[in-house]
Amino acid sequence: MEIKIMKNVLDRNKNKANEVRDLLKQKNVLMVNIISSPGAGKTTLLEKTIGNLKDKFKIAVIEGDISTDRDAQRLKNHGIPIVVINTEGGCHLDSHSISKVLPEFDLDNLDIIFVENVGNLVCPSHFDLGETFKLAVVSITEGDDKPIKYPMLFREARAILLNKLDLIEYTNFNKKVFYNDLNNVNGKIPLFEVSFTKNEGVDQWYNWISSQISSK
Amino acid sequence: MEIKIMKNVLDRNKNKANEVRDLLKQKNVLMVNIISSPGAGKTTLLEKTIGNLKDKFKIAVIEGDISTDRDAQRLKNHGIPIVVINTEGGCHLDSHSISKVLPEFDLDNLDIIFVENVGNLVCPSHFDLGETFKLAVVSITEGDDKPIKYPMLFREARAILLNKLDLIEYTNFNKKVFYNDLNNVNGKIPLFEVSFTKNEGVDQWYNWISSQISSK
Repeated sequence: MEIKIMKNVLDRNKNKANEVRDLLKQKNVLMVNIISSPGAGKTTLLEKTIGNLKDKFKIAVIEGDISTDRDAQRLKNHGIPIVVINTEGGCHLDSHSISKVLPEFDLDNLDIIFVENVGNLVCPSHFDLGETFKLAVVSITEGDDKPIKYPMLFREARAILLNKLDLIEYTNFNKKVFYNDLNNVNGKIPLFEVSFTKNEGVDQWYNWISSQISSK
Repeated sequence: MEIKIMKNVLDRNKNKANEVRDLLKQKNVLMVNIISSPGAGKTTLLEKTIGNLKDKFKIAVIEGDISTDRDAQRLKNHGIPIVVINTEGGCHLDSHSISKVLPEFDLDNLDIIFVENVGNLVCPSHFDLGETFKLAVVSITEGDDKPIKYPMLFREARAILLNKLDLIEYTNFNKKVFYNDLNNVNGKIPLFEVSFTKNEGVDQWYNWISSQISSK
């Protein structure tokens, strides 16, 4: 019985996700669903990436948070449209909440919407928001075993950011283990080793995301 | 309708959780439900804590993982009873799965069962496993905003381990912000600043958990 209910919820989500995707396609807007553990660096990634891209592209952000607007506060100096969705305890965003907030944006004047999902490696991977693609963010300090322990996200994402590279020398993160496991889960996925706080390796990422926007 | 179903599921979980708790009480076994983000250091905490306590107390472990036994492999050298629960994609353990694995242990010869929940700051906080208490683990590298962004766990836990203290100088973690937010969420909770990899601050934790076991 529980499985049936879950399927119904997922089906309803799927239909709404397809509506969102159709609308964004019609408006020629890319939507990136950013997923990571709490504290892997999603907001810092957005701070830096928006700073780098905002003269070239028209950007908006949807911030998914359980109960605060802390992340949105960190981004507001960029002067771009930001909408916060508080999930009130919920562990992920869904396509219905995305659908409800899209009218807040002028979609005719946007290139890309970054969606910062709730910090959680598990649940957000199961819910299609209607995004163009998912972006996985994982940080060195979480350890090298994340691809094998949380494989769904790494299978579903179009690209991976391996963040906090500046801290690798202070940890026991083993790149060989990480890449070996990742290869078993999703061997062909583009991956960028970066430190957003130290601006290391970020140019390849900016080039890649720019090319995704340009070819939309 | 969804809320009603959720309530039924939670009620069923609550009843089973109380059964688990009654059994453990009858057998005089403490059960600690350990909750954190992925990669905050739950398994390292267990490696070190079991090493410190195993001559004094009879310890067992339940490892909750989505699809592997990696964490259990890391603990097996201690020679204590370990049972793995694979959630097959599920984002948290529940009291039914705990109830099913308890017969694997000789409860008459145990002092404490550590339960390593699925790495997730959100969902595990909502599900009572029948534990004696929840233990929150949060790491410096996740940032100082976790208590305010994920308040439920910090309200529900009996104690907090603030781990990876050795990395604080390489991050922008602001202790004042962390403690100010935590104070607003749960001002009275015992907290231990530790680095399990560097064995910093761990003695206070070992003393505290020992006193919890001794006074059960």
